[in-house]
Amino acid sequence: MTSNTPQRINVGLIGGGFMGKAHSLSYAAMPMFFWPAPALPHRKTIAELNIDVAREAAVRYGFDEGVSDWRRIIEDPDIQVVDIATPNDSHAEIAIAAAEAGKHILCEKPLATSSEEARRMLEAVQKAGVVHMVAFNYRRTPAIALARRLIEEGRVGKVLNFRGTYLQDWSADPSGPLSWRFQKKIAGSGTLGDIATHVVDIARYLVGDISHVNAMMQHYITERPLQSGGADKLGASEKNADAPMGAVDVDDEVMTLLRFDGGAVGSIEATRNGWGRNNYITFEIHGTEGSISFNYERRDELKVFFNSDPGDVRGFRTIYTGPAHPNGGALWPIPALGIGYGETKIIECHDFFQAVVTGGTVSPNFEDGYITALIEDAIVKSSQERREVEVERAGSLVKV
Amino acid sequence: MTSNTPQRINVGLIGGGFMGKAHSLSYAAMPMFFWPAPALPHRKTIAELNIDVAREAAVRYGFDEGVSDWRRIIEDPDIQVVDIATPNDSHAEIAIAAAEAGKHILCEKPLATSSEEARRMLEAVQKAGVVHMVAFNYRRTPAIALARRLIEEGRVGKVLNFRGTYLQDWSADPSGPLSWRFQKKIAGSGTLGDIATHVVDIARYLVGDISHVNAMMQHYITERPLQSGGADKLGASEKNADAPMGAVDVDDEVMTLLRFDGGAVGSIEATRNGWGRNNYITFEIHGTEGSISFNYERRDELKVFFNSDPGDVRGFRTIYTGPAHPNGGALWPIPALGIGYGETKIIECHDFFQAVVTGGTVSPNFEDGYITALIEDAIVKSSQERREVEVERAGSLVKV
Amino acid sequence: MTSNTPQRINVGLIGGGFMGKAHSLSYAAMPMFFWPAPALPHRKTIAELNIDVAREAAVRYGFDEGVSDWRRIIEDPDIQVVDIATPNDSHAEIAIAAAEAGKHILCEKPLATSSEEARRMLEAVQKAGVVHMVAFNYRRTPAIALARRLIEEGRVGKVLNFRGTYLQDWSADPSGPLSWRFQKKIAGSGTLGDIATHVVDIARYLVGDISHVNAMMQHYITERPLQSGGADKLGASEKNADAPMGAVDVDDEVMTLLRFDGGAVGSIEATRNGWGRNNYITFEIHGTEGSISFNYERRDELKVFFNSDPGDVRGFRTIYTGPAHPNGGALWPIPALGIGYGETKIIECHDFFQAVVTGGTVSPNFEDGYITALIEDAIVKSSQERREVEVERAGSLVKV
Amino acid sequence: MTSNTPQRINVGLIGGGFMGKAHSLSYAAMPMFFWPAPALPHRKTIAELNIDVAREAAVRYGFDEGVSDWRRIIEDPDIQVVDIATPNDSHAEIAIAAAEAGKHILCEKPLATSSEEARRMLEAVQKAGVVHMVAFNYRRTPAIALARRLIEEGRVGKVLNFRGTYLQDWSADPSGPLSWRFQKKIAGSGTLGDIATHVVDIARYLVGDISHVNAMMQHYITERPLQSGGADKLGASEKNADAPMGAVDVDDEVMTLLRFDGGAVGSIEATRNGWGRNNYITFEIHGTEGSISFNYERRDELKVFFNSDPGDVRGFRTIYTGPAHPNGGALWPIPALGIGYGETKIIECHDFFQAVVTGGTVSPNFEDGYITALIEDAIVKSSQERREVEVERAGSLVKV
Repeated sequence: MTSNTPQRINVGLIGGGFMGKAHSLSYAAMPMFFWPAPALPHRKTIAELNIDVAREAAVRYGFDEGVSDWRRIIEDPDIQVVDIATPNDSHAEIAIAAAEAGKHILCEKPLATSSEEARRMLEAVQKAGVVHMVAFNYRRTPAIALARRLIEEGRVGKVLNFRGTYLQDWSADPSGPLSWRFQKKIAGSGTLGDIATHVVDIARYLVGDISHVNAMMQHYITERPLQSGGADKLGASEKNADAPMGAVDVDDEVMTLLRFDGGAVGSIEATRNGWGRNNYITFEIHGTEGSISFNYERRDELKVFFNSDPGDVRGFRTIYTGPAHPNGGALWPIPALGIGYGETKIIECHDFFQAVVTGGTVSPNFEDGYITALIEDAIVKSSQERREVEVERAGSLVKV
Repeated sequence: MTSNTPQRINVGLIGGGFMGKAHSLSYAAMPMFFWPAPALPHRKTIAELNIDVAREAAVRYGFDEGVSDWRRIIEDPDIQVVDIATPNDSHAEIAIAAAEAGKHILCEKPLATSSEEARRMLEAVQKAGVVHMVAFNYRRTPAIALARRLIEEGRVGKVLNFRGTYLQDWSADPSGPLSWRFQKKIAGSGTLGDIATHVVDIARYLVGDISHVNAMMQHYITERPLQSGGADKLGASEKNADAPMGAVDVDDEVMTLLRFDGGAVGSIEATRNGWGRNNYITFEIHGTEGSISFNYERRDELKVFFNSDPGDVRGFRTIYTGPAHPNGGALWPIPALGIGYGETKIIECHDFFQAVVTGGTVSPNFEDGYITALIEDAIVKSSQERREVEVERAGSLVKV
Repeated sequence: MTSNTPQRINVGLIGGGFMGKAHSLSYAAMPMFFWPAPALPHRKTIAELNIDVAREAAVRYGFDEGVSDWRRIIEDPDIQVVDIATPNDSHAEIAIAAAEAGKHILCEKPLATSSEEARRMLEAVQKAGVVHMVAFNYRRTPAIALARRLIEEGRVGKVLNFRGTYLQDWSADPSGPLSWRFQKKIAGSGTLGDIATHVVDIARYLVGDISHVNAMMQHYITERPLQSGGADKLGASEKNADAPMGAVDVDDEVMTLLRFDGGAVGSIEATRNGWGRNNYITFEIHGTEGSISFNYERRDELKVFFNSDPGDVRGFRTIYTGPAHPNGGALWPIPALGIGYGETKIIECHDFFQAVVTGGTVSPNFEDGYITALIEDAIVKSSQERREVEVERAGSLVKV
Repeated sequence: MTSNTPQRINVGLIGGGFMGKAHSLSYAAMPMFFWPAPALPHRKTIAELNIDVAREAAVRYGFDEGVSDWRRIIEDPDIQVVDIATPNDSHAEIAIAAAEAGKHILCEKPLATSSEEARRMLEAVQKAGVVHMVAFNYRRTPAIALARRLIEEGRVGKVLNFRGTYLQDWSADPSGPLSWRFQKKIAGSGTLGDIATHVVDIARYLVGDISHVNAMMQHYITERPLQSGGADKLGASEKNADAPMGAVDVDDEVMTLLRFDGGAVGSIEATRNGWGRNNYITFEIHGTEGSISFNYERRDELKVFFNSDPGDVRGFRTIYTGPAHPNGGALWPIPALGIGYGETKIIECHDFFQAVVTGGTVSPNFEDGYITALIEDAIVKSSQERREVEVERAGSLVKV
């Protein structure tokens, strides 16, 4: 060990699905990328309902041990960080317990299944004084962070308009199984909470707070085959004509117009029924002095237009993010070597531990998660009443 | 002359600006592309307010003569077709006079400055029994016509969603002159009538009638330098700090959500303040069996996704339109040789004369123009009242 | 007629196929686009072997008359311009006759079926003192003209490298008929003369003269069904299992490395057997201060990179050509409205008549056509000898 | 530990630069992605010349210890795998020592600084009977592996042509420091060995062995500022006008035509002076029944064209790799979530350990590295002699 070895911080991870894998990767890789690292996350305990699954996950993901009861993690005095990567309906209970036990918390998105739950979670972490973060990871894509920097520096002028989409097709096939993501009691909502919230987060990150929404929500597929296993399986993998069917009670598509506090307007469309779109998170921003365009499916790139360029060579620049851009020094030595999903999680992990170690705050946090939940409420209400709806303010609950 | 020489039909063109040029091109070129041609359009008379301008236009655009009074065209018994390519506020007077004189009419878009005007124009042509067309030319882009054919054939299943944009930046610079396009009394509206209506037309062409809208309209630039000449100049060409300013009283941006009669939903965004976008007419359609995507800036291409493709080679196909596609036999011998703006007008010209010669109808016609004006009304009302608005039906006025 | 009416110049067009159509369009449209026009081309006579075909072509393409013997055009004292749009093996005879008759000549590419023919054609026009042009039209694409201007102005520094392609797939299907383009005695060569020469022309236009080549040529399809009609049909349209077969004796693909006089190097690949590529004329140029990239299939766009851009916003700019670019004032009022194949021919027509009227010269002319033929010779020789070959210089034959 | 816990295999890594980081990531992440994993790689020892650097690297990259003498790794009986991530000139000495000690070897590319060195390395591993691999990682990009599968399955027919590029711009700036990559005695060659070999590897992977080359090599920048530190710094970061200069004695650009054993032809261009290109590894393959196109800068995508598609919907399909594609089950649950550079290394790591555990072989191995070195020899010779050169065969040295 060298004298400037970062401190080791023990992590307990709850949930060994797709997100558990992504978070485990980030704990292992964060110091490799960010050096000196704010801390050395140590993978101590992973919890899964089934003890065999938990033990296997511990080997696979490099944890010291696997446990079947997540409360073992809460009760472990050697664990400083609790990572919640479970289905949405368990976030509140776990997070509140973790906060009361004084743990710092990284929670997957959406924060909760309702704004009421989200508010209680926020109150708990504020009362406990712990570091809290909600894992809207996409804003950590270097190209999106670059967009934020350019906007902050005024390089595209005042923002007039934001158009965002999140289009997927993994639920377009009616034969896809009825996973928890299609059940309101577990997921809280469908496309809205699952993916539209990522774009809401990006919109708030880039343009600021949203004051009004004006939305339509659609429900295309009303029943799906019951799933045999409990896995978090995406897409249509099991086609069994005889499988009993269960009701889908969440939305498939949401479209909303937006008004931002600063006067800008915008729109968001999210669907999981858009054939041919995989992880199509896009936005386009028009400012008074330029424009910015992004598509996560080509996430190494940010397209930027400056009206100040000479008239004969003016056009969107396709910028490949690299060492010259946010977090670029930590990632790969040249642009286009390849930003993957993992990198967004590695940067998220870094920023979280930076806050843990310095006692600071990090965004997006439970406040952001709560505000996003209030925006979700307004979208649902607007869709039902077919009119523009003002977003309820988080108000005094939130201390920034 | 050979025995199967098409009949010659005399045309009178009113307006020698950008659109006059495009239409003149189409008259000369139509038989070169479509053969046997339904008719040989003969460029007989062109009208411009100034007689010198009119005479010069006649030479330039290949007309027999130039006149300064458009009524000379209406009164000419040898002219069968009147082409209206003037600013919007004169469309109604000219069209009604032409109809009363028994002329077939091709009118530039938007049809009128209000739905009331549009209704009177429709009544006039219906009463006169003449062929009428409104020049929403973009639906004649071969790639868009291909999209229509694929939808009609059910190859992407039932349409769920339509997302359209028309983004330009030629009015993003506040120093651009106050052309007629920024004056409500001449143009009727701003971005809404000028370009959003093109996307409304495409949406109706591809998905069907629109029953409800839910819109926001924005006004970014409130005054502009008064223009010296009367030319239809786009963009910022004259920067004169001392130029007196005039008020802009039309919209710069319009966004609307849509409900279609068939159950599909959608959205349209149109702006002339989107830096870096030039003629960015795009749409994406999600169906139950596939998707279609289009961008006019790359107009030779249509992107289509079929869910029935084998799972390992499934992806949007980039189809370059050519001989295998609508009107392809008439255009160029291989795909990607190059579809330009002119081709959309040449096809429009063909379809119009086909109707003239056969005594049939053609779309989009004044009925479509009137319906589009009713949709414009609903968009304005929705924007003012901040709620969803039902589109008024054309009703018994329209006989299909 | 106004006082500044351009002079009328009579044109005789030989050949009513695809190229005859494109040239006819350019004669009609040139003054509509370029105004004041250098001249008003008048379509006087069109020649086709069959008199009925000729007469029908006259009606279709707007000529005063159709004739079956091209010598009627040569002998007509009222015709000042002869346009040669016939298969390659007749270019020399017609052009030499036209030159001797004192006609200005626009000849389709490639100039001839051999460098020897090309040399005699060049000698003839030089001796006659007429204006001569060879129709390598693609260099008139506004985006390519912009590339030339940027290079000339030094904005990408000294050129290091050029990589060009011309990929098509219309001859990839072995069932496509044995058109004249597959017969050496008519076409002179296959892909080499038909399409590779376009890229050679672009390379010379942008980077300068070529001193050495190092080539491979491939021959994939050795026989094809004999064609019933004589039409210039591209692609596979007639599949008749019983059709008698004829030998293909031209190349299908050519690849060559290049050395330019100025020290730059490069490569060209051309094929008509590249499935999925339609009119895929591309180039990429690396200079000491930037790069340029182009793809004709998206011909409204030029992509340019400047190393002098700030490090955080450096990337290829996608420039849509419009009024700010070469010939932009004559074309359409905003970028991306749509440059088609016709526009390249209209600009070509303008530049040719400019030279006719002013008594100047125009490029590319028969000298360029001859030099290109010498480069073709070197490519064939290099391919046969499997070594680098120096290009023979046009030498004293050429007076610039 | 569960009963099916994979065996632990100890790794010694030599070199803590960019490649050391990438390999460390792969050791940590491989079992997270591939489960059940063939083995659990244990990061035991990392070697760097400076002991403080080595110890810090051990903490950062998760190794048990850091050492300053790589021979400590060779001599450690508990280490089964030696990973060579040092500059090229030390590969041979280390690899031969590791082979003699019976270690399995993963060696960075290019295998050596000369074919002679490569041959000796191959002899050593063959004699020792150890598993050996050379880290041409790009062929493990899922989209490239999919290309291989489609070709093997005959889905694009017989391959006619391959065109590959590897374009970068990090050495285009003459003020970039004289890193080891610009020094022949350390690197062996410049662009040729550094990046062109990656495309040679891809070409061999997809199309087969190369029999002849016909090349040009260019040398643009002849001297660079001497570098203060020894870091593997890419690009122009230190601009010091007073810095003493050192000679660059390697190539900047290489272009070559190719003949493959199976009759296909092709070309490769590689440069590190192509402004605006970052990691632009591209290829296009034309087959008798279809085409394939790839660009690593958009590495989630493979573009494939099938001539058997119906004529009206035929076009390149943009396939986003995911669970349906090679190694897709191990990576991320939906396409376009994001394949990064790390994933190519994680798959490489998996395949290597699979061979280690099963006693099998893996490609590309030292034989491939040696054959690539022979191709490099032929390229240099061809460039010098300006003629096509036959590639020397590995011959009896190679036992497959």
